[in-house]
Amino acid sequence: MGTIKKFCFLLLFVFVSNAQIKKEQLNVMPWPQQIATSDAVFLLSKNFKINCNATADSRIYKGATQFLRRLDERTGLFFTQDFINKPNEFPEAELQINYLRKGKNELSEDESYHLSVLSNKIVITATTDLGALHALETLSQMVQNNGSEFYFPAVEIEDNPRFAWRGLMIDAARHFMPVEVIKRNLDGMAAMKMNVFHWHLADNQGWRVEIKKYPQLTALASDGSFYTQEEIKAVVQYADEKGIMVVPEIDVPGHASALLTAFPEIGSNIEKTYAVSRKSGIHDAALDPTNPKTYQILEAIFDEVCPLFPGAYFHIGGDENNGKEWNANPKIQEFKKKNNLATNHDLQTYFNMKLIPILKKQGKQLMGWEEIMTKDMSKDAIIHAWRSVKEGMEAEGGLAKAAKNEYKAVLSTGFYIDLMLPVDSHYLNDPMPKNVVFTAEEKARILGGEATMWSELVTPLNIDSRIWPRTAAIAERLWSNDTVTNLESMHKRLKQISFRLEEIGLTHIRNKAVILRNISNYQDTKALHDFTNICEPYKLYKRNGGGKKYFMFSPLTLFADACTADASDAYEFNKAVNRYLTDKDELSQEEIKYYLKQWINMNIELIVLSKKAPLIQPLLPLSKNLSLVCKQLLAAIEQKQSINKTELNMLFEQINTRNSADVELAVYDSLKKLAE
Amino acid sequence: MGTIKKFCFLLLFVFVSNAQIKKEQLNVMPWPQQIATSDAVFLLSKNFKINCNATADSRIYKGATQFLRRLDERTGLFFTQDFINKPNEFPEAELQINYLRKGKNELSEDESYHLSVLSNKIVITATTDLGALHALETLSQMVQNNGSEFYFPAVEIEDNPRFAWRGLMIDAARHFMPVEVIKRNLDGMAAMKMNVFHWHLADNQGWRVEIKKYPQLTALASDGSFYTQEEIKAVVQYADEKGIMVVPEIDVPGHASALLTAFPEIGSNIEKTYAVSRKSGIHDAALDPTNPKTYQILEAIFDEVCPLFPGAYFHIGGDENNGKEWNANPKIQEFKKKNNLATNHDLQTYFNMKLIPILKKQGKQLMGWEEIMTKDMSKDAIIHAWRSVKEGMEAEGGLAKAAKNEYKAVLSTGFYIDLMLPVDSHYLNDPMPKNVVFTAEEKARILGGEATMWSELVTPLNIDSRIWPRTAAIAERLWSNDTVTNLESMHKRLKQISFRLEEIGLTHIRNKAVILRNISNYQDTKALHDFTNICEPYKLYKRNGGGKKYFMFSPLTLFADACTADASDAYEFNKAVNRYLTDKDELSQEEIKYYLKQWINMNIELIVLSKKAPLIQPLLPLSKNLSLVCKQLLAAIEQKQSINKTELNMLFEQINTRNSADVELAVYDSLKKLAE
Repeated sequence: MGTIKKFCFLLLFVFVSNAQIKKEQLNVMPWPQQIATSDAVFLLSKNFKINCNATADSRIYKGATQFLRRLDERTGLFFTQDFINKPNEFPEAELQINYLRKGKNELSEDESYHLSVLSNKIVITATTDLGALHALETLSQMVQNNGSEFYFPAVEIEDNPRFAWRGLMIDAARHFMPVEVIKRNLDGMAAMKMNVFHWHLADNQGWRVEIKKYPQLTALASDGSFYTQEEIKAVVQYADEKGIMVVPEIDVPGHASALLTAFPEIGSNIEKTYAVSRKSGIHDAALDPTNPKTYQILEAIFDEVCPLFPGAYFHIGGDENNGKEWNANPKIQEFKKKNNLATNHDLQTYFNMKLIPILKKQGKQLMGWEEIMTKDMSKDAIIHAWRSVKEGMEAEGGLAKAAKNEYKAVLSTGFYIDLMLPVDSHYLNDPMPKNVVFTAEEKARILGGEATMWSELVTPLNIDSRIWPRTAAIAERLWSNDTVTNLESMHKRLKQISFRLEEIGLTHIRNKAVILRNISNYQDTKALHDFTNICEPYKLYKRNGGGKKYFMFSPLTLFADACTADASDAYEFNKAVNRYLTDKDELSQEEIKYYLKQWINMNIELIVLSKKAPLIQPLLPLSKNLSLVCKQLLAAIEQKQSINKTELNMLFEQINTRNSADVELAVYDSLKKLAE
Repeated sequence: MGTIKKFCFLLLFVFVSNAQIKKEQLNVMPWPQQIATSDAVFLLSKNFKINCNATADSRIYKGATQFLRRLDERTGLFFTQDFINKPNEFPEAELQINYLRKGKNELSEDESYHLSVLSNKIVITATTDLGALHALETLSQMVQNNGSEFYFPAVEIEDNPRFAWRGLMIDAARHFMPVEVIKRNLDGMAAMKMNVFHWHLADNQGWRVEIKKYPQLTALASDGSFYTQEEIKAVVQYADEKGIMVVPEIDVPGHASALLTAFPEIGSNIEKTYAVSRKSGIHDAALDPTNPKTYQILEAIFDEVCPLFPGAYFHIGGDENNGKEWNANPKIQEFKKKNNLATNHDLQTYFNMKLIPILKKQGKQLMGWEEIMTKDMSKDAIIHAWRSVKEGMEAEGGLAKAAKNEYKAVLSTGFYIDLMLPVDSHYLNDPMPKNVVFTAEEKARILGGEATMWSELVTPLNIDSRIWPRTAAIAERLWSNDTVTNLESMHKRLKQISFRLEEIGLTHIRNKAVILRNISNYQDTKALHDFTNICEPYKLYKRNGGGKKYFMFSPLTLFADACTADASDAYEFNKAVNRYLTDKDELSQEEIKYYLKQWINMNIELIVLSKKAPLIQPLLPLSKNLSLVCKQLLAAIEQKQSINKTELNMLFEQINTRNSADVELAVYDSLKKLAE
């Protein structure tokens, strides 16, 4: 934005009082770069209409029509306008959408927009339709009501993304995700202004893309669950209409059990019967990089897969090849010597480099998980950082290392949403951390970040509850200014955004009730709901340690599947406890007592329900121990009796012991604090 | 079943005591033809396995695998068996599935099965895999638990359908229904042993099937919402795997606005600009039956559509052509004279007869709504009865007339589930009513029945709640013996079946909560839930009388959309009132008081909620009047004061006046009875 324009922008709103308060009432996410409010409002009425000034383009027509329908469904105003499919149909319409040209689904594209809401007019101005779509999403989040009428508060917003790559990866290999799951998550991404969908299509547990030349791939390695090429084209088209680029991933040379089920002859262990895996964890299966047929087959596959995806990137995985099969194969060891490849890393570099021209022929740049970043790897490759200190990465991280080593890079370290970590940790995970010094060139190489939804423990029923609403916080990190870091504000807005995400079809709220009805054997689910609001699934790899409990066909309709990270009541309770311990105020005390009583009562209800619902049985020990703790704390707070420290410590120990419900009590720390 | 086999069957269970009680505990639907129970149970364990004795067949493998997964998800037992895809893999498995051959998806196919559950063995025996699939559905409904373990009660079941045609029609023209909506409803059909899916693909409001020769059809007349031919093939394949035949419908010569939007030249009014309609109701648009091009275009369309559907039937609609455009066109009138076609019915017969060879060439029989049954119509046509006395049909009905006139026929009169009538009326609607005398030949012509889900007032969000669980009662009517008519039993089982339908992915329960969250602006929805449980959407055509309120793009996320026919609390309350008025018993009185108090309180809660939720406002007058009635009745029951008849009558009148919430109070009659 030029200086003069900026000056006018500030001038316009300089007179406005209490603008700060108004801003805080807005539940917009990701937070815009610049926002100014006034006291005026734009009242919505039945006659509300939209006009597009641009020439025919299905993207904005569809987006604007969907916006109108969504608004109508939320307000029940029965708008008279039906479909928006002509330019300048209603020059007097209250909402004017102006943009210059159709945007390309590329990283360098202009996605900025200006949104002006006055009391009688709303104007969206953007260079591309992609920017205009973003503006519609912002506007859609701003609806408010006074009990009888719906309105938009007046605002002036200038907005554009901080990072070009704002991605979500869905692993459709471990648990297959049907097209409708992908589509509704693309809707969620678009609502959060995310623009890269990374589609993990093959892994040890399944091959999910139709290859016409090799029907054996899906016949032998998909259990009948895969995408036809027509389906993929339809998804890519759907994504394009929402301004989202799709990046396919075929994970090689490791993660190859499914591929090798169909083509054992290119495996590194020729005596092994490769089979689609039902387990989680790192597998040995690896392609033989010394076999020319490996490249022939991969080329034929890539030749079919690449044209389905118009985007510039192709992800070859490249992670977690443990080298065991290579080490055990004398032929491969001999090849290494002959070609001066000292280590398996060098051999994998050899393999990766062979793929570059195959992809280049199809107009694609190679992208891979950070293990591909070896000393001889081409600087054209895009590095996808994923490891943290835990996985052996130095503290600075793979992303910084890549950028400093002249690679373009995308960050997923810290964005592993499958690990059930608190949203705060993802929100504060900046691709450009303040403690690392980057040159301008290095900064330019940091493309952005990507939330990764690995699917060991998710199915179409519960996947949305792992992705949303938390990925909205990641979207904000990638879109908004790096100074937007207030956790309270994020939590407050995230709660509202969660409802907006439900509205567009995501199932993260509704399917929780489905799981709880199943567990309760269709009895009243209130007590179960209460319990889910203070329990969280085991974090990191604890729930399925060693991949021993859950196989790919195990039931994921259990209590832990209804629970999510950031348990809602726990968030409130923990805040109340912190306040109480500082201020000893009555209100906080009352809130704490309210919850303690609720959990005592909950335990009784769960016992009653369990008489007709065996799936409640595994929850009872935890619920009972919690109830006993609550009784002691309640009596202590009400000063009826002093705490029995020995008993309480024993109870805390039991609560902290691994339980078969696979959840942890998210109020544990607060309860302990209260007991001290 | 032969006499000796039958004798053995009875002998086996003749010693069993209290079998009748056990039977009543089963929540099976449709109710089997013969069922005998014992006191034994089959306990489910982690080691439960399934073995198929038959040769490779994806239908039973998929069905059995899905059965296993569903059972595992309900019980959380973590079965060790993964995929069933080989014959005789586990000869010692507890569940043995034996069948002779793959069934054909034809009306004459053998769908019978025998299911034997003993304490240590379950055996399914069937002629075809279709029968075996039915047996798995029955078994799946029989799971019970004792609080800690899950089990099947021991049974011997012999079962087969009463009618060959057990259908569900979904109108995907008025509101488009994406593939996933169709698929989950096919799952529901299979669970209810229904075998014909009738897909209404074109109407005034949209053309929903890709025609490669005429891309203008979907380009101009679908608003971008249509099925590609690949998608249709996938749905047909999906249906086939569940034993369901798909019958396509292209409605001609009326209901043709969408078709004529693309081909105005074959319309009967050549001066009209035909356009996709946004309204409900009968339209004038009709193809010109005198124009040879009409048949050329239809033939090209049918030539593309027919091969997508391997079934023997093609539905040409043929209903509700009001003849206005034909009467107004002199050329058409002249043609009638020249060809001795006295009436428009004769002209339509001429039109219909021209379609028969076009369809025959593709191996299809013509089916049409009952208007096609004119005196010269070919006896090869299948008549689809839909009109009741209201629509001018004689009392005996179109189905009886067709059967007596030598037509094969299917009944939809009385199965119009879009009209929001009580499930009782559908349940007692027998295709072979006892008051009509049929010869054996006539009986043989009555193929069965079909529930029709017209989509003027449904979207993907609420359609399941209009179809399910009520269509299960229709499925029972069409499958079970005509003596199975106990309404109490049906209601009791239907409630449980509703949960089974949720389990397989139908959204009739979960999406109600979504709509209520929207209405409440994401506040607590308890009061709204309570209100929906005593309100029903206006019945018949009252909600959208004259098609004036709701257009095809109007919001269907309102209170009436969250309500369903057969409001659950109303059902209980009405029973309690009837008991109370007969017996004056205390228990019924307490139940009545409980509800009256609930609705008084509900009104207060709704008022509070409405301060932040404008969509609650339209409910307040009804809720307030109900609350005032309840207060009077409660005081009267508690003998605190006598009833103010004048005020009460005024309140009842107001309650009975059309309200803008588009619902009726389903406890109205009972409240009136209490007031007398």
